[in-house]
Amino acid sequence: MPKGQPETVPDDGLTTRQRRTQPITAVHTGPGKGKSTAAFGMALRAWNQGWPVGVFQFVKSAKWKVGEENALKVLGASGEGGTVAWHKMGEGWSWVQRSADMVESSEEAAKEGWEQVKRDLAAETYRFYVLDEFTYPMHWGWVDVAEVVEVLRNRPGNQHVVITGRYAKDELLELADLVTEMTKVKHPMDAGRKGQRGIEW
Amino acid sequence: MPKGQPETVPDDGLTTRQRRTQPITAVHTGPGKGKSTAAFGMALRAWNQGWPVGVFQFVKSAKWKVGEENALKVLGASGEGGTVAWHKMGEGWSWVQRSADMVESSEEAAKEGWEQVKRDLAAETYRFYVLDEFTYPMHWGWVDVAEVVEVLRNRPGNQHVVITGRYAKDELLELADLVTEMTKVKHPMDAGRKGQRGIEW
Repeated sequence: MPKGQPETVPDDGLTTRQRRTQPITAVHTGPGKGKSTAAFGMALRAWNQGWPVGVFQFVKSAKWKVGEENALKVLGASGEGGTVAWHKMGEGWSWVQRSADMVESSEEAAKEGWEQVKRDLAAETYRFYVLDEFTYPMHWGWVDVAEVVEVLRNRPGNQHVVITGRYAKDELLELADLVTEMTKVKHPMDAGRKGQRGIEW
Repeated sequence: MPKGQPETVPDDGLTTRQRRTQPITAVHTGPGKGKSTAAFGMALRAWNQGWPVGVFQFVKSAKWKVGEENALKVLGASGEGGTVAWHKMGEGWSWVQRSADMVESSEEAAKEGWEQVKRDLAAETYRFYVLDEFTYPMHWGWVDVAEVVEVLRNRPGNQHVVITGRYAKDELLELADLVTEMTKVKHPMDAGRKGQRGIEW
């Protein structure tokens, strides 16, 4: 229950209004549930503001996010809030032309995804970005975290970016304005229960 | 990225299918961001399954959840997924008739909310419940946690319940199947930045 009262006022020469409209970089990390789910929850607020929302899923299997995807697509098409563009690495990024027998590595696909994010940030295509599971390509060394930090730091306009996934790099956490760690306290799979529809996807 | 493989198989005499359809009690607690946001993200999955969703906001000021509320109402009215009922304590619960000059305490309002949740659980009104900020009435002693645990443990059918808020009681965590603690690592308000639209609400 935020009270809207900052604990300190920084000596940065900015007015509250200027500070209020600074672009946010958020990271949801840690081993617990809710990293992506909370990012998609944030996307509901962005949608409600009428902002164009861009989702990039940096995972091969996209089964687990189908509920959020369907919901955000219905919202995007409702004409009441912002638009929603949903890009999935698992199906091959929509903007990439490839022949039927072309098999692409996950590393290549992740790099392609990041190149498109860079283009969209430069063009200010969206106002709110979810880079879902994007910590993994950085963790595996496929995408250079120093470049990500550089691009995010220098992005134009007022574009908010939320990055999810475990093993977020220190450089990324250093850059981020908002970092939340989701800690697993208890999970039904530990008790031998399998994921179930409506809960896990 | 859940693999769908439980770490152990319990000796509870249930089949995987039976275990898969057990009702989930989830608690999002801790001082970090994303507790409610992740619960509303889960509600997107429930909606996508076509389930009736019931949200009960146990807070006086509901300003901060307006994005999620509008989004879920649009989804509920879209005819494509489940229905959404959104109940707010802050405006006086919708089912309570009161005279214009009647001023109600937060404690009375919280108790009324819990009574309605009990009626809805007994009637199986919804398939997915968000009891937002419901830990606080328990923390303050307004609602008896032992009774909450008893009611949740014995609820009929397959009704999933997500409870959010800080200071979740041990008895509640003991009952819950899924507990996630959101830890605040870094927050823009610490750096003197105020909440901004599209991010905080």
